[in-house]
Amino acid sequence: MTDYVIPRAWVITLGNEVLLGEVENTNAGWLARRLTSIGIAVRRIVTSPDDEESIEVLREAVERADVVVSTGGLGPTYDDRTMYLLSRALGLPLETNPRALDMVKRRAAERGFQLTPARLKMAEMPVGAEALENHVGTAPGAVLRHGSAIIIVLPGVPAEMMQMFDEAAEVYLRGMGRGPPCRREATFEGIVEADLAGALLELSKDSSVYVKTQPRGKPGMPAVRILVISFKGNCDEAFRRLEEAARSAGGRLLGE
Amino acid sequence: MTDYVIPRAWVITLGNEVLLGEVENTNAGWLARRLTSIGIAVRRIVTSPDDEESIEVLREAVERADVVVSTGGLGPTYDDRTMYLLSRALGLPLETNPRALDMVKRRAAERGFQLTPARLKMAEMPVGAEALENHVGTAPGAVLRHGSAIIIVLPGVPAEMMQMFDEAAEVYLRGMGRGPPCRREATFEGIVEADLAGALLELSKDSSVYVKTQPRGKPGMPAVRILVISFKGNCDEAFRRLEEAARSAGGRLLGE
Repeated sequence: MTDYVIPRAWVITLGNEVLLGEVENTNAGWLARRLTSIGIAVRRIVTSPDDEESIEVLREAVERADVVVSTGGLGPTYDDRTMYLLSRALGLPLETNPRALDMVKRRAAERGFQLTPARLKMAEMPVGAEALENHVGTAPGAVLRHGSAIIIVLPGVPAEMMQMFDEAAEVYLRGMGRGPPCRREATFEGIVEADLAGALLELSKDSSVYVKTQPRGKPGMPAVRILVISFKGNCDEAFRRLEEAARSAGGRLLGE
Repeated sequence: MTDYVIPRAWVITLGNEVLLGEVENTNAGWLARRLTSIGIAVRRIVTSPDDEESIEVLREAVERADVVVSTGGLGPTYDDRTMYLLSRALGLPLETNPRALDMVKRRAAERGFQLTPARLKMAEMPVGAEALENHVGTAPGAVLRHGSAIIIVLPGVPAEMMQMFDEAAEVYLRGMGRGPPCRREATFEGIVEADLAGALLELSKDSSVYVKTQPRGKPGMPAVRILVISFKGNCDEAFRRLEEAARSAGGRLLGE
């Protein structure tokens, strides 16, 4: 099991409105939880603007991550430029994607919209993209494979993004991660964080285990919350070491 | 006025807990609003882990931004490594900062904590840093100047981060921005986004103006919300052009 390499994800949220503080970025946190739950480690989350500066962000993401998930910038207006920025990042021309065009036409017909150039733009994707259906809104998403990376391009509207991610993950990320990481959490009374310093330092050498301690004391009764998370499944051993350190310092597991 | 260069900020939030989806990153949004309100344009927000990978993130931020604000990783535990990562990013050795040491000692005395090595670590900062007092918690923050960039290093606990940012901004960012950007917002009934496409395309050539349109229609009555934000103060002209386009397409300002 030690040779299992955990897939690495970067989440890129594109949009000036987040940078201007006009909109709270709830997409990134949701995607972090979702990716973690299927066993993919999120290594970076970037919010960058709807302009050329994001080309380098997307390019670096594709070079460095196994899974890149972008949100935002797929709509009909001029600042919806994600497909263009991605085509520049990948060095691939934009083309009208036939399946995306069908989706845009169908949605326009259902809702009685005209097929303006702005709406047709929503079907333009880098060559080789597979269109993803938007069941909530109108702008299609896309999946691209580039080198060893898979890129999932989602809309920015949370309800659209969530539905599309879950549907795409089922098809394109299945079997990539090994399911949710193991996770153990406990609080020990009667100790302070410093009592665990030795054990923590030892555990810090294993980068596949994430350990977080937090003081949870009240006056007269210190306490420490311990959280252990590992994608490689070795939570129990890490937890046992911390428990030993806690008990030998006089700690008592809360709830015992 | 046209030669005024808007200061650019990068916000870097360090912490595995956000990447694992354990904690919602509310710090980044708060800082984006705060920086915007003093006239500093946030160009990138990055969340990256408590490990060596963040060295390059911090280095790039310092090279590219006028203001870098980091949050997280200042506490006593082994995964609180921001000062180390920053020292690596800047190529500056860590030293015990005398003012930070005073702060740590004072806080330990007040709260009856022992001065363990883990606590003393909180006073280690890159050479040349100015320590920032933490009035809410125990870990000091820091301000560094590097090349033309100013770096503000804040704790991750929101209440500590907010207090420290506001105090530091008052001293170190005063006069850097020109106050809040102008902002105009209105909704026009009887038009769709496509009616504004020409005017929007025209406005998109001026990168100092951010214009966002959003459909706000109900069945039988389409409507478009227009938001104009500009750090350079030219909102009114942009808004007038959109208003003209909206009216000539039959739009009516909501509330008229």
